Amino acid sequence: MPRHSVREQLIEAGFQTLYRRGFNGCGIQEITDAAGVPKGSFYNHFKSKEAFALQALEHFVDIGANRRALLSDTEVDPVERLRRHFHSLSEAIVRHGLDAGCLIGNFSAELPSQSQAMRSRLSEIYTSWIRAVELAVGDAESAGRLRRGIPPDDVASFLVNAWEGAVLRSKVEQTRLPLDQFERVVFTSLFT
Amino acid sequence: MPRHSVREQLIEAGFQTLYRRGFNGCGIQEITDAAGVPKGSFYNHFKSKEAFALQALEHFVDIGANRRALLSDTEVDPVERLRRHFHSLSEAIVRHGLDAGCLIGNFSAELPSQSQAMRSRLSEIYTSWIRAVELAVGDAESAGRLRRGIPPDDVASFLVNAWEGAVLRSKVEQTRLPLDQFERVVFTSLFT
Repeated sequence: MPRHSVREQLIEAGFQTLYRRGFNGCGIQEITDAAGVPKGSFYNHFKSKEAFALQALEHFVDIGANRRALLSDTEVDPVERLRRHFHSLSEAIVRHGLDAGCLIGNFSAELPSQSQAMRSRLSEIYTSWIRAVELAVGDAESAGRLRRGIPPDDVASFLVNAWEGAVLRSKVEQTRLPLDQFERVVFTSLFT
Repeated sequence: MPRHSVREQLIEAGFQTLYRRGFNGCGIQEITDAAGVPKGSFYNHFKSKEAFALQALEHFVDIGANRRALLSDTEVDPVERLRRHFHSLSEAIVRHGLDAGCLIGNFSAELPSQSQAMRSRLSEIYTSWIRAVELAVGDAESAGRLRRGIPPDDVASFLVNAWEGAVLRSKVEQTRLPLDQFERVVFTSLFT
């Protein structure tokens, strides 16, 4: 097995710590303990906990890249593409543990007023995610499958926000029911 | 003006601190500073920061009680009741400052794995809120205004979760657009 660099060890193990405990719920010591590296090495690789959290967020987004790709597979019916995208995101949340939630949602709740850099990066991540969703929603509209009178950009933004809200509620209830309700309501009411 | 008790001062001023900084983002000192009382007095009234946060959450729920009442005003069309309920919640979020969000959503993101008491209380709050929404959704269904094939309990839970997701996104974008998109999509697609 290739030996990971200290920086990679910090991101992979520390990411889990940030994900489960929140930004303000853990210290540098817990991050370096999780990575099995000396505390002093942290600042050789990251100038601050904020800089580290931004890298952890990129790591999280990279992990989800293949689920983004489901949206642009034009061989597949556009409504089915949307369903597969959100379903596979929900499965990943369930697999990872409902108490952890989604790192994008967690940081959205905790950090916008505390870190301008984080707020700005989260906004970019949402914009790019929603643009990919909007392309599939637009294809559904062209196929006459989107209920009339709702602009695709509103729908795409709504879907992403509503899915994040379902994840948030699943953290509290510790069941996947909110994620399943999201699918049932969205794919019965917004699309035909 | 009546003089507030130290306990009331702590809840009213400390509540704002918890609301804006998060549970793990502030210490007891900041809470007592905000209330203008000595730090030592905190533990005369609350056995822990967790116990204080639970009281702050009750304070937040109490503030919103009149918006809950909009749902049960059977003089008003049920779809209009739902619209007024969520619209007035959104207006309150905007008025309070988008960066603060909703305390229920904030604690849902931050605390479920850290505090069993908080997780359990949040679950009760959602249950009671969703039950009130479900009654209005049921009235809309009886009036033939709910799109066919979606059970009212799924719709009620979905609406509350999706609204919390819109608030979360508004924290990041610092605009009310996600809240407006929630209204536009929900009241065009779920109800007739």
